[in-house]
Amino acid sequence: MKNMFFTLLVLATFNSLLAQKKDSAVIRQISNHILTNHTCYEDLRYLCKHIGHRLSGSPQAEQAVAWGKKVLEDAGCDKVFLQEVMVPHWVRGKEEAYVLTPQGKKIPMVISSLGNAVGTGERGLHATLIKVDHVDELKRLTRKDVEGKIVFFNYRFDQTNINTFNSYGPCVYYRWGAPSEAAKLGAAGVVIRSVSSAFDDKPHTGSMRYDKKYPAIPAVSIGNTEADKLEAMFKEKKSPEFYMKTTCEMLADVKSYNVVGEFTGSSMPKEIIVFGGHLDSWDIGEGAHDDGAGVVQAIEVMRTFKQLGIRPKRTIRAVLFMNEENGLRGGVRYAELAEQHAENHILAIESDAGGGTPFGFSMSMDPIKRKKIQSWAEIFRPYNIYNFEEEGGGADISPLKNKFKTPVMELLPDSQRYFDMHHSANDVFENVHRRELCLGAVAMAAMVYMVSEYGL
Amino acid sequence: MKNMFFTLLVLATFNSLLAQKKDSAVIRQISNHILTNHTCYEDLRYLCKHIGHRLSGSPQAEQAVAWGKKVLEDAGCDKVFLQEVMVPHWVRGKEEAYVLTPQGKKIPMVISSLGNAVGTGERGLHATLIKVDHVDELKRLTRKDVEGKIVFFNYRFDQTNINTFNSYGPCVYYRWGAPSEAAKLGAAGVVIRSVSSAFDDKPHTGSMRYDKKYPAIPAVSIGNTEADKLEAMFKEKKSPEFYMKTTCEMLADVKSYNVVGEFTGSSMPKEIIVFGGHLDSWDIGEGAHDDGAGVVQAIEVMRTFKQLGIRPKRTIRAVLFMNEENGLRGGVRYAELAEQHAENHILAIESDAGGGTPFGFSMSMDPIKRKKIQSWAEIFRPYNIYNFEEEGGGADISPLKNKFKTPVMELLPDSQRYFDMHHSANDVFENVHRRELCLGAVAMAAMVYMVSEYGL
Repeated sequence: MKNMFFTLLVLATFNSLLAQKKDSAVIRQISNHILTNHTCYEDLRYLCKHIGHRLSGSPQAEQAVAWGKKVLEDAGCDKVFLQEVMVPHWVRGKEEAYVLTPQGKKIPMVISSLGNAVGTGERGLHATLIKVDHVDELKRLTRKDVEGKIVFFNYRFDQTNINTFNSYGPCVYYRWGAPSEAAKLGAAGVVIRSVSSAFDDKPHTGSMRYDKKYPAIPAVSIGNTEADKLEAMFKEKKSPEFYMKTTCEMLADVKSYNVVGEFTGSSMPKEIIVFGGHLDSWDIGEGAHDDGAGVVQAIEVMRTFKQLGIRPKRTIRAVLFMNEENGLRGGVRYAELAEQHAENHILAIESDAGGGTPFGFSMSMDPIKRKKIQSWAEIFRPYNIYNFEEEGGGADISPLKNKFKTPVMELLPDSQRYFDMHHSANDVFENVHRRELCLGAVAMAAMVYMVSEYGL
Repeated sequence: MKNMFFTLLVLATFNSLLAQKKDSAVIRQISNHILTNHTCYEDLRYLCKHIGHRLSGSPQAEQAVAWGKKVLEDAGCDKVFLQEVMVPHWVRGKEEAYVLTPQGKKIPMVISSLGNAVGTGERGLHATLIKVDHVDELKRLTRKDVEGKIVFFNYRFDQTNINTFNSYGPCVYYRWGAPSEAAKLGAAGVVIRSVSSAFDDKPHTGSMRYDKKYPAIPAVSIGNTEADKLEAMFKEKKSPEFYMKTTCEMLADVKSYNVVGEFTGSSMPKEIIVFGGHLDSWDIGEGAHDDGAGVVQAIEVMRTFKQLGIRPKRTIRAVLFMNEENGLRGGVRYAELAEQHAENHILAIESDAGGGTPFGFSMSMDPIKRKKIQSWAEIFRPYNIYNFEEEGGGADISPLKNKFKTPVMELLPDSQRYFDMHHSANDVFENVHRRELCLGAVAMAAMVYMVSEYGL
């Protein structure tokens, strides 16, 4: 009996070593294939250069849906289908601004309306600027201090965090909620220092939301070097005047789609692994890192499985979500449909942190599942993927998590350059590196492969 | 007795935890300081934009020595001194080339003479091209096949390695030794596919060496897209003619210097920790990643220690080595002087793998020392520095290792982009990222701090 137990133990260990060797070989094959062909990079070039930026509701977003569907079909998916969803349709219109220095000099400024904001209309808005470095400072002001003025939120991106997403968080408040805080005190408009790590004049846009209790006032961003100029004027203890004209507006909702490509699992088709990025982008730059990268990586996983003849045991699904940027309607719709069809998602993975060199996956799931993934560390190590400790997940897959407690993950790429580009004119194809993008696709494919083989 | 042992154990553990907490706080301070001020990035801008490339023996190399000395003095080093060394003085001269297709069309090609190569002279060299994909293929050819021809070495950079330095190694043979292999069979000249991961027309230069048994023949590189064009012509089974004119030549040696900045150790001044990069660069591009990055990071370590009032227990020394690229004379000289002065180097660290985001240190030292460094892993982990397993060390510090068995290390930055730029016109300041460069300086400073506190 003891001998038999020992024999079984030896056999089990031997089998597990064999399996690990096989898995490592498959992932090496995946990696070689992607790095040699780098088709995802060419996909990204097409998406950025032939379609361009693609805000929800725009003609380019519609083109991107058709493109995504075709590319997934060409990749040889078992099924490709669209999920209809109504999305917001915000349009930017014209933008113009200058600051009038205390000495009477007009300095033009490049501005970007914050996404979803109202415009000033053609007549524009001319008012005295007041500077607020932190929201607590605003809260100490009275209505008399603020009324009729343009509030300049001068909160800086913290350069000391190693993971720049930790600096993004606190800044986002100034883009998302601070305009209504200013409106509460009667402000006529808001200018924010961009949520940006770059020292340049490029404004970064991004979603904002009005608190319905207060008037909706125009809100724009300016680049870091422009914000420095304003700050310098305040150091002279004089308040500059600011002029801005924006004609952005929210139009009626538009019909759009998530794009889904699927391979049906060979032995456990009811267990679904979903992964993807979002197809929509902001309407400046080309949405290359945010989130063209995630989109083409998800497509690359499907193409690679097909071309290498890897038949997943569980169902795998690449989803190109619509409307992450200013509504999350695609992500919400995906979870609703999953509920309607009583689908069982065992894992959702997002790639929406840029196309930089990956170093891990953040996750939000119970510790036993995380431990299972951590037990694969040796398989990922040759690809410099070592971090499976962080908490995280992506926006598009958060409705799945909220509705079903689906375990979620997000690819962790190096974040040093990301917020130089994010939501700005800097986010173009040329700023994505071929090999870095490919390594993200390799990491995604490897994770999808492991979970499709062994479940969670 | 048992109780006392237990008390001592608790005290020791407590002290060690306290020390770790203090060290973590110091390193956090270092990191915040460097990321907020990013002075090394401004140093690099100056070096690249005001001095430019700086091949050994050039006027710019001389300017770089004066600049390095001044910047180290301004950083507040206890001592700054120069180490005289005679260096080779190779000059590029004119370059011109075209390929004559089998259809008689002239296609101009951007070429770069390999460093140390002889030129064709003003008359140039016109000959039939033969293509060799691998040196084994050359070895199967006879003198009759090769004599009077220009050999096109078409060996490709392997895109499948995750660490691109592993692809660099095998390619370098074609730059370094293959020209003489061709000369052995009577070739009149050599063109190599650049040692480059980029798909562009930029040729990458770099050192070569002639085997004195065979004639020294002209040798140049071409970019990957140009090499693809040649390859395509060979697919038509016709041999193109190639013309190249190069007037490069080796002049008499020139006097130059290593630049050294030092803080004398407060309690163990005889134990020296040396770290640095090389001040010379190739004569195309700006030597920004190779190795402006290493130079400014080493300077930043000294400046940061001074500005934060960190007094190292052991002597620390930043060295800007001269002539790594085409002679290693500076590194050799440093080790000779260390011997003359009977200096005790406990560690040498090089940063010469570019200014990308760092993820570890490679090392060459006995396993006990490596284990000691690995025991600090937790201290480095918040900076995404996790890999202390690789074998390695830098060229400039190899003479120290060879002469004294000095433990050596090299900073490991992400290598995905490095060989797109290395030794080419792409290696310019704009291609170095501020935060990535700074994180390399943080990693260097943290390692220097830990070894200066605890020895090896």
